[in-house]
Amino acid sequence: MNTYILLLQCKDQKGIVAKLSDFIFKRGGNIITADQYSTDFKAGHFFIRLEFVLDGLAQRDKLEESLNLFVSPLRAKFSLYNKHKALRMGVLVSKPSHCLAEILYLWKEQELDVEIPFVISNFAGHRELVEQYRIPFHFVPAVKSNRKENELLKIIGAKTDFLALSRYMLLLSKKFLNAYDKDIINIHHGLLPSFKGSNPYRQALSGGVKVIGATSHFVTEKLDEGPIIAQEVVSVSHRDGLMDLIRKGKNLEKKALIDAIRSYIDYRVIKHNNKTIVF
Amino acid sequence: MNTYILLLQCKDQKGIVAKLSDFIFKRGGNIITADQYSTDFKAGHFFIRLEFVLDGLAQRDKLEESLNLFVSPLRAKFSLYNKHKALRMGVLVSKPSHCLAEILYLWKEQELDVEIPFVISNFAGHRELVEQYRIPFHFVPAVKSNRKENELLKIIGAKTDFLALSRYMLLLSKKFLNAYDKDIINIHHGLLPSFKGSNPYRQALSGGVKVIGATSHFVTEKLDEGPIIAQEVVSVSHRDGLMDLIRKGKNLEKKALIDAIRSYIDYRVIKHNNKTIVF
Amino acid sequence: MNTYILLLQCKDQKGIVAKLSDFIFKRGGNIITADQYSTDFKAGHFFIRLEFVLDGLAQRDKLEESLNLFVSPLRAKFSLYNKHKALRMGVLVSKPSHCLAEILYLWKEQELDVEIPFVISNFAGHRELVEQYRIPFHFVPAVKSNRKENELLKIIGAKTDFLALSRYMLLLSKKFLNAYDKDIINIHHGLLPSFKGSNPYRQALSGGVKVIGATSHFVTEKLDEGPIIAQEVVSVSHRDGLMDLIRKGKNLEKKALIDAIRSYIDYRVIKHNNKTIVF
Amino acid sequence: MNTYILLLQCKDQKGIVAKLSDFIFKRGGNIITADQYSTDFKAGHFFIRLEFVLDGLAQRDKLEESLNLFVSPLRAKFSLYNKHKALRMGVLVSKPSHCLAEILYLWKEQELDVEIPFVISNFAGHRELVEQYRIPFHFVPAVKSNRKENELLKIIGAKTDFLALSRYMLLLSKKFLNAYDKDIINIHHGLLPSFKGSNPYRQALSGGVKVIGATSHFVTEKLDEGPIIAQEVVSVSHRDGLMDLIRKGKNLEKKALIDAIRSYIDYRVIKHNNKTIVF
Repeated sequence: MNTYILLLQCKDQKGIVAKLSDFIFKRGGNIITADQYSTDFKAGHFFIRLEFVLDGLAQRDKLEESLNLFVSPLRAKFSLYNKHKALRMGVLVSKPSHCLAEILYLWKEQELDVEIPFVISNFAGHRELVEQYRIPFHFVPAVKSNRKENELLKIIGAKTDFLALSRYMLLLSKKFLNAYDKDIINIHHGLLPSFKGSNPYRQALSGGVKVIGATSHFVTEKLDEGPIIAQEVVSVSHRDGLMDLIRKGKNLEKKALIDAIRSYIDYRVIKHNNKTIVF
Repeated sequence: MNTYILLLQCKDQKGIVAKLSDFIFKRGGNIITADQYSTDFKAGHFFIRLEFVLDGLAQRDKLEESLNLFVSPLRAKFSLYNKHKALRMGVLVSKPSHCLAEILYLWKEQELDVEIPFVISNFAGHRELVEQYRIPFHFVPAVKSNRKENELLKIIGAKTDFLALSRYMLLLSKKFLNAYDKDIINIHHGLLPSFKGSNPYRQALSGGVKVIGATSHFVTEKLDEGPIIAQEVVSVSHRDGLMDLIRKGKNLEKKALIDAIRSYIDYRVIKHNNKTIVF
Repeated sequence: MNTYILLLQCKDQKGIVAKLSDFIFKRGGNIITADQYSTDFKAGHFFIRLEFVLDGLAQRDKLEESLNLFVSPLRAKFSLYNKHKALRMGVLVSKPSHCLAEILYLWKEQELDVEIPFVISNFAGHRELVEQYRIPFHFVPAVKSNRKENELLKIIGAKTDFLALSRYMLLLSKKFLNAYDKDIINIHHGLLPSFKGSNPYRQALSGGVKVIGATSHFVTEKLDEGPIIAQEVVSVSHRDGLMDLIRKGKNLEKKALIDAIRSYIDYRVIKHNNKTIVF
Repeated sequence: MNTYILLLQCKDQKGIVAKLSDFIFKRGGNIITADQYSTDFKAGHFFIRLEFVLDGLAQRDKLEESLNLFVSPLRAKFSLYNKHKALRMGVLVSKPSHCLAEILYLWKEQELDVEIPFVISNFAGHRELVEQYRIPFHFVPAVKSNRKENELLKIIGAKTDFLALSRYMLLLSKKFLNAYDKDIINIHHGLLPSFKGSNPYRQALSGGVKVIGATSHFVTEKLDEGPIIAQEVVSVSHRDGLMDLIRKGKNLEKKALIDAIRSYIDYRVIKHNNKTIVF
């Protein structure tokens, strides 16, 4: 028995839940989870996530085909996923290791249901950590003045479904984004839209804030401006110096990044303009 | 145009989402919000909340009738509500006034969409506060040794859809619960199941806990044991004495009780055994 | 027996805690609470809050005098307060009433130990609420194009120790700040430094953030930039529309403003550059 | 230059802060951080943490000696620590690895300033993880019916200053506690005093709570009843099944245990009856 997940969005219109449910039922499907959200009743936008089982085996292609016909009059966009097929997540990381270590640990414990085809870093020192887990490690000495994006693209190849920038400190160019053309999830160590750019904890310290945060978001051309998937916060006081903010922040970064990845690989995230629907 | 809300629960079974959606669609309904949850795929329990509009006017009775026929083979329980008809909430309160004041303020600001037919208290001093809002106030000098439940029932009469115990410090008897026979929401000033009974903050203080909480739950015969609807927590330290815990706790109590009431009057709460589904 | 509170700050230097403790001890004082913080050992800045009792009666003036002599070589700034003398807090408020209602309720319940000599509003509708508490209410029809600051100053006179802007929506000019020349605490309905200026919840909504906040800070000439005293945050999701953000935000605003006021009137706040030490 | 930390507690009494400050000053010490707390002014209990530098080298023993003389009339208990001497923390752990992995990672990153003389486990599978860090690993096949406490004590020997039970699932006997006779910090995967004993997440699930937690506390003879050092909480909903509670709980356990350890090794924890003062 196969479980599928359908993510669909379109202009809101009458009877769409009923039509979709009926469509799936008639093809032998049984909806086991439904999540739906509309931005507004009149002239709103409609989002749905359906998890359903199909009895037969070879039905996925047929289903996708008939879905294409079905959604055409609705002008809907949809994606159909096989729930039990793990996504392939490429990891890029600079020197800070806390997000990388968390990802590897959870992956090994089977608490993060992804494949990790490789870890790429511009910090050679991560090799030992990564190879302990028998995951291929690539050192690419990218720096601000030479980002070596072609080399990155060559390693990435067709091996991934998405990338997780797990504290990768170099901006990816528009050219890279176009060439890769799949989703990239980043963790920013500040509570966006505050504290963009570098040294967000230093900014937070000098601003005298009483709350700090971390933000996981999709990467777009604009630095630290893509749709936000998850944010984490913690209270701080005057006693917290820069080292304390960094230390407390690491927990937030791990939490926000893992939450975002988990939502993404469970197919619970829909992008809409500069926002996300996270079911 | 009328908006209805259907809460339905039954044993999980194949095609139920599709059947329900189809049922509503065929009666001229348009589902605008769907929330669904199943405890487990095999032999699980199924819960759904559907918000839908019907074009015609006099359709509610007919709809309820056909729903009765429809759900019969599913062995489902359901309730059908008119979204824009405010529920009538009777308020019982003892001396502490913070929850009462919050309810009255939010009600006046139209942030709590209920009718309040009366406030009953065993503390006479609330009269002025309540009558400022032109809400009938009843002083019933109930005490532990004489709970005056018949008097309470007489005042309550048929005026309410549910009761909110907004820090009412007397236990309601099984007899009262049977006679009233509708939902009663209570706020307990402790993080259940810890600190049942009286003086939960004193219990928390002497236990040296670093987190305190408040719990809003449905009332059952067993003291402080009904299904939990909402809980709020806050960190405390050794510096917090009893007065600090009480003061911090009041914010939690207000928040948990209002959250629970809001979920309830939006028809987002389903009781199942000793738990709640809160959509 | 009188309880005093000493707030003192200076360049950090050797033996300062011992000298101060000794100074107070020799004048018949007994330190009952000490809080101290230094930004850094070398070339750092030193802050202390001492709560102490003095046996005699008329000693405050003498103590202040000798403190002046004592701190002179330390180049310290200090303030000496009588713990049990309530501060006088003038309240300015525009149309939103939630912070005002919270302040008045807590004040009446003796949970906010201030005197409130008046409430000034540019919204006439608050008169009934305020006068219920037998607090003088002044309607000053200030608008953006005519802030009527002279009228404000005339009402304020010498009646206050500080002001609480409890959602007062007009900027106070530099001239006003200079004329008033005491502390002014503001509540901003956004998580500064994000979302300065007007409509912060609308900004948050369009930014697609997953956390919103409120900030209480001292007022300076620069809009929404004074030293932050307290911040509160809450998670939000795509389901939260503008009305939800506003509703959730009101709880944050009340909490952050009351926390800030409480810290301030307990003499636990020291300003230092653009930051606060909150003991 | 040496930095010392003094933790001292006694019945509250007049002039104690001044006397202590003066005492340290006269021995060439400079207090750089002072934290103090009294339970109540009259007949209360007094706690202080002083961090101070001494110019000379061989002064620690002399200081301890004169402290002994000094505190004798105060009937005070005190401990004197060398700030820069790392404590030795023995680790005991059963099968769940998340707390162990976090401890080892932070230790390696120099974010947890302890020495780890060994890890003991009744799960042999942790050997590889532990030995990667070049820390001695001891497999002791303790089970409920045979806790092998003598073997544990033999390995522990005099190698530790305290123990961290990082999800060690066997109760330690009174005999063991007496023999070891130093502090033992435990992490319990429930929000004490709720959910003592085994399977706290299952208890939480069946209780239908909306908040779960984890508790780090000192071990005493009574199961899950020692003084609480740190607690962490997170909201859950009906959608969270047992696996979700366990997964979310792991983050809480790591956070609470690390916070407790950090407070302890910074000498910020004082035990008093069944509670803790955590400066």
